[in-house]
Amino acid sequence: MSSAVPPPRFDVLGIGNAIVDVLAPVDEAFITRHDMRKGSMTLIDAARAQAIYAAMPPAQETSGGSAANTCAAAAGLGARVAYLGRVAEDQLGAVFRHDIAAAGVHFPTAPLASGAPTARSMILVTPDGQRTMNTYLGACVAFGVAQVDEAAVADAAVTYMEGYLYDEPAAQAAFRHAAAVAHGAGRKVSLTLSDSFCVDRHRAAFLDLVRGHIDILFANESEICALYECNDLADAIARVRGEVALAAITRAGDGSIVVRGAETVEVAAEPTQLVDSTGAGDVYAAGFLAALTAGHDLAACGRLGSIAAAEIISHYGARLRPDFGDMATLLG
Amino acid sequence: MSSAVPPPRFDVLGIGNAIVDVLAPVDEAFITRHDMRKGSMTLIDAARAQAIYAAMPPAQETSGGSAANTCAAAAGLGARVAYLGRVAEDQLGAVFRHDIAAAGVHFPTAPLASGAPTARSMILVTPDGQRTMNTYLGACVAFGVAQVDEAAVADAAVTYMEGYLYDEPAAQAAFRHAAAVAHGAGRKVSLTLSDSFCVDRHRAAFLDLVRGHIDILFANESEICALYECNDLADAIARVRGEVALAAITRAGDGSIVVRGAETVEVAAEPTQLVDSTGAGDVYAAGFLAALTAGHDLAACGRLGSIAAAEIISHYGARLRPDFGDMATLLG
Repeated sequence: MSSAVPPPRFDVLGIGNAIVDVLAPVDEAFITRHDMRKGSMTLIDAARAQAIYAAMPPAQETSGGSAANTCAAAAGLGARVAYLGRVAEDQLGAVFRHDIAAAGVHFPTAPLASGAPTARSMILVTPDGQRTMNTYLGACVAFGVAQVDEAAVADAAVTYMEGYLYDEPAAQAAFRHAAAVAHGAGRKVSLTLSDSFCVDRHRAAFLDLVRGHIDILFANESEICALYECNDLADAIARVRGEVALAAITRAGDGSIVVRGAETVEVAAEPTQLVDSTGAGDVYAAGFLAALTAGHDLAACGRLGSIAAAEIISHYGARLRPDFGDMATLLG
Repeated sequence: MSSAVPPPRFDVLGIGNAIVDVLAPVDEAFITRHDMRKGSMTLIDAARAQAIYAAMPPAQETSGGSAANTCAAAAGLGARVAYLGRVAEDQLGAVFRHDIAAAGVHFPTAPLASGAPTARSMILVTPDGQRTMNTYLGACVAFGVAQVDEAAVADAAVTYMEGYLYDEPAAQAAFRHAAAVAHGAGRKVSLTLSDSFCVDRHRAAFLDLVRGHIDILFANESEICALYECNDLADAIARVRGEVALAAITRAGDGSIVVRGAETVEVAAEPTQLVDSTGAGDVYAAGFLAALTAGHDLAACGRLGSIAAAEIISHYGARLRPDFGDMATLLG
């Protein structure tokens, strides 16, 4: 960043779908019986949401949303964080608002006063630890350009957005606007590709974004391969290296690969016990961005991402324990 | 039961406060700073609920309520179960209704259409695994005699009620009515004392109940000692033996003592790792009643109670995992 840019108030500002997770364990047969695509996120309407909820086991509710998970985790690790996303003025909206504020995240977006309820995602966890998400977007579809808090975006070192925003035209417009505001203020823009099927749905838009507007890209193997339509991770990495300044590619149990120009850093996975993979990518990005904006080198960024991911997959839910520890403690 | 009594449709029918738990870990200082009585349940008003919620960490929401936890667990273990309790017609009410129905419990009580919202209990778990509960009763105060489904009560082998009902006059009247309906149909009535401070608040009423109207009593050491105002457990057990047909006294890590007439059965605690004691007494009663109504002997009843309690305290929340197993499997 040029020396003319003032120091930012926030290290990270996230923009995403503000969602309450409804999480329950199911067997493999449940996924098959309800025609779900295991491991993916599917958008559903209110009727389908009601049908799936009626069929699913007793659940636990926790605040979720990909970028919101990242923000809550980054704040817990010690970063200064803001979040923009839309809930409704209802009980689940109050739960979401409480949880993100209690995590220490500045959350200025006004709730939707009438209309659709707060979004929820029914997350079904199979015995192998995989999660299959069924998301009713509700009030999230009322997030648009008007909800982009320009002052906050201009005051954040990194504006971080989830690819899921591309499933709604208004959110897609908000994404582009936020990116322009951030760059106009001399800040960085970061994207996570979110889901390989999301990439399939919006490949042309993502390719255009990644080439021209993204400074820091997060993706897992299947997402980056979906973006570049190649089967070999090495090919995808060669492509991304030429197109974004910094990319972190997560590989589940095999750790992650960070590329910046000619530089490549391989990061090991932290040992853990997989219970529920929900939120693994989200909190990896949290650790990475918290360390990056604090001035750590790429190896430390990847390591903090891995440490956070190892914690989150060892239990149900996508938010770190409040007492997980801060960056300095975790990086030793 | 006399041979003239027809076989019941339900093994257990629970009546209690229908509550959504809002559960979070806190340090000891949080309990002190907010003037809470550690390990107890305190009733709070809407303003205090808002103040505690604003101060507490990010939380998870799960269905709770003492008797409701018992019902959900008993159904999971294979008993035929019904539950009566009042939620509001709101999102948390829908969560409660989904979870208890998904657990296999018949839940016929109509929600409160307008007025107070669904009850919630802010449960703060300290590092020692103790839980401190702050309960806003909300719609529960609209549970009265009219909500006692007489046909269901008359069709249940055991009607099980929580002492917490005694904190509201309408619920107390409902309790007495349900007990009369159950006995009139030749069924059994069971009570859990719930909390030693609850016993202190309503000692005279509880003493009258236990002597004249309860067939099966559940209590922990401090509750039974509070009831009889004695310091020695042996004295309390001698008293209860003369006053109720069957009593199960839980002793946390020391197991439980079951007394029936001259008979005494000592039950060992199952080995486990204490994470969160929320629901331990509730699911002990579930295991005990599920086994009892299935015709098992007292040792098996106590053992199934201990097995369920050991599971519930090993993780956050007061509901058993959907795949925990049924009675036959768990009793080997």
